[in-house]
Amino acid sequence: MSESSNINKATNITWKATNITWHGMKVDKQVRAKANKQKPCVLWLTGLSGCGKSTLADALEIKLQEMGHRTYLLDGDNVRHGLSKDLSFSDEDRVENIRRVAEVARLMVDAGLIVITSFISPFRAERQLARSLMEPDEFFEIFVDTPLEVCEQRDPKGLYKMARAGKIKHFTGIDSDYELPENAQMVINGADSEPDVLADQVIAFLRQQVVLNADD
Amino acid sequence: MSESSNINKATNITWKATNITWHGMKVDKQVRAKANKQKPCVLWLTGLSGCGKSTLADALEIKLQEMGHRTYLLDGDNVRHGLSKDLSFSDEDRVENIRRVAEVARLMVDAGLIVITSFISPFRAERQLARSLMEPDEFFEIFVDTPLEVCEQRDPKGLYKMARAGKIKHFTGIDSDYELPENAQMVINGADSEPDVLADQVIAFLRQQVVLNADD
Repeated sequence: MSESSNINKATNITWKATNITWHGMKVDKQVRAKANKQKPCVLWLTGLSGCGKSTLADALEIKLQEMGHRTYLLDGDNVRHGLSKDLSFSDEDRVENIRRVAEVARLMVDAGLIVITSFISPFRAERQLARSLMEPDEFFEIFVDTPLEVCEQRDPKGLYKMARAGKIKHFTGIDSDYELPENAQMVINGADSEPDVLADQVIAFLRQQVVLNADD
Repeated sequence: MSESSNINKATNITWKATNITWHGMKVDKQVRAKANKQKPCVLWLTGLSGCGKSTLADALEIKLQEMGHRTYLLDGDNVRHGLSKDLSFSDEDRVENIRRVAEVARLMVDAGLIVITSFISPFRAERQLARSLMEPDEFFEIFVDTPLEVCEQRDPKGLYKMARAGKIKHFTGIDSDYELPENAQMVINGADSEPDVLADQVIAFLRQQVVLNADD
């Protein structure tokens, strides 16, 4: 049988998910966290396009790496080229994109990493979904609160201009809602300070939360 | 506007993927690999249900962790509870499951980890897809070659019995093909040796491939 016919042939009977048992791994999150000398967690950045999420994420990751931490940055743009390349930008597919990202973040936390995510993630329900996958002390929602006018003035990718001209539809802040965070652990003012300064604020916050040691 | 109406409302216009630019990250794979003192890669285990993939993966991960390496084990059963919980076991969905796993493995390699994957992955095309996402020297297909009769005799989850009784349809080796690897970098005889011995064989192989240092 050829590969293609094997893979594409119609299937109407499947074995059920109930057959699955959770595989008890011998090397677990605690072992990996200890090896990395850190508390694995997700720093979930949320905010409008142009609010400064990505530049803050970059600055934060550089500082954490310099401090010897093991990190990874999951970025909306990057994930869209791979894991979520089958998804559109409809509301439904945007939620599925965030679900997959949150599941990957969960696996990476399990792998012992400090994961920074940088997604607009405009809906409370999707941020709540992401939070629900992690332990309570492993998930930090960080709202990068930059006024729409400032984001639109920056417009680093020219997307606001296109949205205003009607060339992009369904753009957050223009013709799609951004639901303000009600449960953010931290609110960053993204308008006034340089990314380096904002990153230092996050690191101070992580020390308070005992994610990082005081002498880190 | 309520959350649910916002998330679920019908959308017929989306902005296009062509707006996406690859976000140039400042902390890259080389930086993370150097911090972890290892060459990130994927060890892609393939073979029949019961061939010994999971026990080998466990033994291998324990040894690599003890050697000081940063690893993660992606397991078919585990991924099915999270990232792929929306997927069935149809041929089409099984391929999509493997695609997602391969994309996650790619991200984890980018994060500097040695990733062990443990999936039946019966189709050449899906193994080729996984391989295609990685650099040539980052992907090692390891065929755990255990005769069907041995796997069926072990039958650790009782699945072969159910498949023979017709209670599970579309089961690899019974009424669904396992396409023998033609490009495996390593073939393991899973029938005769203990997992520890097999893990040592893989580690010797990784030293040959310069994934691990000779003095590791």
